[in-house]
Amino acid sequence: MENPPGDTGRDGFQWTKETGLQAGVPSLGVILPPSNLPSDDTANSDTFDVIVVGGGYTGLTAIRDLTLAGHKVLLVEARDRIGGRSWSSNIDGYPYEMGGTWVHWNQPFVWRELFRYGLSTKLEISMVTEGGLNKCFVDMGTRRVEMGHDKEDLLSESALTKYVDVDGHLARTVIPFPHDPLYNKEAVARYDAMTMADRLDEIADELTPVERNMLEQFLSITCGSSRFEDASFFEVLRWWALMNYNYTDFIALGLTYKLRAGQSALARSFFDEALATEKLRYAFDSPVSKIVDQGGVVEVTTTARDGSGTAATFRAHRVICTVPLNVLYKIDFSPPLAPLKTEASKLGHVNQVTKIHAELANPELRSVGAFSLGKLTYGFGDGTTPAGNTHMVAFGSSQAGRHLQPEEDMEETLRAWRRLIGRDDVDIRRVVFHNWHKDEFAQGAWEWLRPNMSLKYLDELRKRHGNVLFGSADWALGWRAFIDGAIEDGGRVAKEASDEIRALRRSNVVVPGINGLSF
Amino acid sequence: MENPPGDTGRDGFQWTKETGLQAGVPSLGVILPPSNLPSDDTANSDTFDVIVVGGGYTGLTAIRDLTLAGHKVLLVEARDRIGGRSWSSNIDGYPYEMGGTWVHWNQPFVWRELFRYGLSTKLEISMVTEGGLNKCFVDMGTRRVEMGHDKEDLLSESALTKYVDVDGHLARTVIPFPHDPLYNKEAVARYDAMTMADRLDEIADELTPVERNMLEQFLSITCGSSRFEDASFFEVLRWWALMNYNYTDFIALGLTYKLRAGQSALARSFFDEALATEKLRYAFDSPVSKIVDQGGVVEVTTTARDGSGTAATFRAHRVICTVPLNVLYKIDFSPPLAPLKTEASKLGHVNQVTKIHAELANPELRSVGAFSLGKLTYGFGDGTTPAGNTHMVAFGSSQAGRHLQPEEDMEETLRAWRRLIGRDDVDIRRVVFHNWHKDEFAQGAWEWLRPNMSLKYLDELRKRHGNVLFGSADWALGWRAFIDGAIEDGGRVAKEASDEIRALRRSNVVVPGINGLSF
Repeated sequence: MENPPGDTGRDGFQWTKETGLQAGVPSLGVILPPSNLPSDDTANSDTFDVIVVGGGYTGLTAIRDLTLAGHKVLLVEARDRIGGRSWSSNIDGYPYEMGGTWVHWNQPFVWRELFRYGLSTKLEISMVTEGGLNKCFVDMGTRRVEMGHDKEDLLSESALTKYVDVDGHLARTVIPFPHDPLYNKEAVARYDAMTMADRLDEIADELTPVERNMLEQFLSITCGSSRFEDASFFEVLRWWALMNYNYTDFIALGLTYKLRAGQSALARSFFDEALATEKLRYAFDSPVSKIVDQGGVVEVTTTARDGSGTAATFRAHRVICTVPLNVLYKIDFSPPLAPLKTEASKLGHVNQVTKIHAELANPELRSVGAFSLGKLTYGFGDGTTPAGNTHMVAFGSSQAGRHLQPEEDMEETLRAWRRLIGRDDVDIRRVVFHNWHKDEFAQGAWEWLRPNMSLKYLDELRKRHGNVLFGSADWALGWRAFIDGAIEDGGRVAKEASDEIRALRRSNVVVPGINGLSF
Repeated sequence: MENPPGDTGRDGFQWTKETGLQAGVPSLGVILPPSNLPSDDTANSDTFDVIVVGGGYTGLTAIRDLTLAGHKVLLVEARDRIGGRSWSSNIDGYPYEMGGTWVHWNQPFVWRELFRYGLSTKLEISMVTEGGLNKCFVDMGTRRVEMGHDKEDLLSESALTKYVDVDGHLARTVIPFPHDPLYNKEAVARYDAMTMADRLDEIADELTPVERNMLEQFLSITCGSSRFEDASFFEVLRWWALMNYNYTDFIALGLTYKLRAGQSALARSFFDEALATEKLRYAFDSPVSKIVDQGGVVEVTTTARDGSGTAATFRAHRVICTVPLNVLYKIDFSPPLAPLKTEASKLGHVNQVTKIHAELANPELRSVGAFSLGKLTYGFGDGTTPAGNTHMVAFGSSQAGRHLQPEEDMEETLRAWRRLIGRDDVDIRRVVFHNWHKDEFAQGAWEWLRPNMSLKYLDELRKRHGNVLFGSADWALGWRAFIDGAIEDGGRVAKEASDEIRALRRSNVVVPGINGLSF
């Protein structure tokens, strides 16, 4: 089987007519048993070289780089799986992507890894524009507009280009170096102070009603369907610059290429390579409650989760904390974090999207795209399941009055699908989703900052705190909020920690526990 | 000093009015002393984990990855410096790039390394289009055409787009995955059978004389000014696909961003990181003459070079051979290489360019670009030296009757510069160059294949030969013939060798010398 299911974990939901709503779906990312720590209690009194908190792509990159370099590493993870905000569930041999999905060879850090693991030639084209209806539907409220994908592209390109072209140079003067996005601080300050709604107001007279509608739903993919009044316009410019300043590449880089085997297969490649070094210990189901830096040694305390997992205190010379922005403040740090870091975390970013899939016994829908004013804002045909059904993916709004919470009301969720597609007779066989708003360990999906956060907080968020280093896609330099950014920042902190541990080993200073760890 | 000169090596030439022509220029890439092997002869009877032959970016990536992973590595290099076909010479605090130069964040493998070494935010924009004349000159033989850079871009874009648009989809159907360029084998076969000259003939009626002239000189940058009759048209399509299928990005990715510190600073970052592990031995000035695979152990024999360097035989469990295509056949392999590999190497690629710099006491030329029918085909203002002079870079033709061999005739070289610029009174203060045609260890510059070579040889060139692995930009998958491709392929063979050495160590089989190497 090309796509083995993996084990069933706690995350995600699945609904079918027959089974109703069920919590927990299978994933290659679920690791069983949840720990490989020796049962002997005393072994945990060893001091690790590095403890990595969090097993998303940042943490996975860190454990892989550190163990390959010969360091002794402990991974502690709150969930029962790796991957963080990027993971896939293989159901009946078909991968559903629950979070970060799309990749491209212009994303340097993730591409290097796809190549390394032999996955770079195993891509699949996501959006289908052949066979079936081959149409785009725009829900105008009281009426619906239909058009071909060529016209959809023309209108979307026209509208998006007007939206981002703040300087007559397609924003190139605002962000001349997409991997150094704060380079032009003055311009950044100006556009970061604007909300996405402010910019919509500025160009309101230049958009037709259909263009405006399509632009709004298109923008909703970027910011996780959050309220435009809460979302920084600079973030749109940043995405645009990363996508090579043009609409064609925006689609190609942002929404086109996915992994035939699913994201969790990539995540497993990192994990399995680290494990094969025999330098990796891990404890899943182990949320971290406290991190105490005692100078030479840092203590990390985990709590048990619902009766499983490990409540324990571990020690290491360095800690790499990859906990996402929106939940970082919940960990009790001693000494306390810099006030600006805590402030950023408490303020948080605004993306509270639900990513939701449907398997539809309507093959004609495989080439449909849809812009909707309902509780799903944007969706498209994303492939054909082994059963020959259409797979559609959509994004649940988190806008006021439109916030979709599918696990609370499946009937409303099915209605939102029917509205998106514009047909009451659509035959929904299966729904699979992850509601990132209700996700206890991320409290949000990919990062989308509020106005005035970028210049104020990003530099601070990247800073270390004594022997604790902070890595995350949430404060990466280039593809911030993308898989690529997670791997970028994981590599950064892993190199820093590795260089320091090597220096400690070389120094004449006797460091307790730095040698002779009893693995 | 931001750009220390480094030591003076053998490669490259410099000319000034005062000194005349001098062989050898300073570079950070020159390593002195040329070896860190123990003087005690018996130490060389140890068996290394891996011997890496060649210290270009492929070899540098390999030694860095392998030593970080704890393996014991010997680097043997024919030259007195690292970097291979990419190296820079810092003269009076200014870096001149003698080979591979330009980088971009869409090049995944080199970008990951620039970030790793803190160089990704230290870029400089190469082509200058501000201040001075701000013109482009086109040498039409009997007359000269002048135009602004805007018009130059319009004409170049128009001509290049006609040249590559073989399918009405800007070649996207020919190469849908630029990092898997042979994916559409049928289309590849068709366009690989064509020469660059064939394609020029096909669109001859669609080009104005000025467009045709500019297109020919522009194309000469890609193929190293080789004869279009000898050069595969598929190679142009491949570059075009890698450059995101559009002219704007062709310029941005191919010719725009260079390292403020010079390429040899990046090369040193790899070398220095490997050295810091204390797992690296090296021998420069040591061309390899013979590689004998005895099964468990491979013997590599070097010859001394001009009285320096090490004539010796070394042993390792794996060898990574990064010797370029055009000289690979000169090494005596036992057992002999697969006939197809040898055939490809003897046939060779066609790029025999001279890369040549001039320092001109004419500040108004800093924003000039020039297309010429002389012995220099294309050049442009590339910066301002600390002395306030204009730095121009140009490419020496290797076309029949136009082949520039600057070290043989400096007067002719100065005349070629004057013709390129179109002024007899230009004040040439300094010329710096590397003639890749005369380079004994590469016999050519960046790879540009002949027709019908891609499908026939590339897969074979990537294949191992017993315990010898082959890595090179010349058979990389994505950015083949670029720095990025060198790093890609170095990573590939390093991982393969590393995984195998780890497996050997884990196995119960006693492998002579695999443990307890006396470093």
